[in-house]
Amino acid sequence: MEETIFTKIRDGKIPSVKLYEDEECFVIMDINPIVKGHSLVIAAKPYRNIGECPQETLDHMMAIAKKLDSKLREELNCDGTNILINNDPASGQEVPHLHIHVIPRFLNDGRSFGFAHDRYEDGEMARLGERLRLG
Amino acid sequence: MEETIFTKIRDGKIPSVKLYEDEECFVIMDINPIVKGHSLVIAAKPYRNIGECPQETLDHMMAIAKKLDSKLREELNCDGTNILINNDPASGQEVPHLHIHVIPRFLNDGRSFGFAHDRYEDGEMARLGERLRLG
Repeated sequence: MEETIFTKIRDGKIPSVKLYEDEECFVIMDINPIVKGHSLVIAAKPYRNIGECPQETLDHMMAIAKKLDSKLREELNCDGTNILINNDPASGQEVPHLHIHVIPRFLNDGRSFGFAHDRYEDGEMARLGERLRLG
Repeated sequence: MEETIFTKIRDGKIPSVKLYEDEECFVIMDINPIVKGHSLVIAAKPYRNIGECPQETLDHMMAIAKKLDSKLREELNCDGTNILINNDPASGQEVPHLHIHVIPRFLNDGRSFGFAHDRYEDGEMARLGERLRLG
């Protein structure tokens, strides 16, 4: 598996503020936080996206994200969190190595998603739903 | 547990395009999609956020989100996905009932996160990290 910025951080070749580490994942603080406290739960192995990541590892990473959500609420008294996985460059993923963003949020913190939205034509959503049904 | 828009959809009191359903969660298409195909994996029970949701249910919901990621790539040939959980109103959560957004993304689809960022003073990130370390 190839080296990424995150494997270098994992191995201590690049400094970071590490909040947690085990065999499957580690947690660092994002140096460019959306809100202070913004942290990343990173797979120990450089899976590019959730499709490449074994379910057990993903489950473990989410359990750590859940703990982090709880810790952020305790320590920062934040009012909520965003938990976000960007898969592949088209989604805004900046490092091609699976990571979960956990972002503390405060009422009136002035942050908001700037996503534009699309609109379905009559009947289009139902037709698309036929193709997307999970077995 | 109280009724939400999503418990009404779960129970068929409000129409939806349902892609999947089991005892722990169900999947519907978002009627106001960021990108067409945008779907929601919704807990069957109206937990408000991941903190209230048992780990096993969250794991199961993520497994379904992973399948949906794969299905969206197969059917829409999308280049990536965003997987997003907003916890509580401060985070932008619009329905107080745990759900995972799975959003197909295409290179140059014109969507982007509009989040502003914050900036740490010298030493501030390390000091905050002391408080956020997970046991």
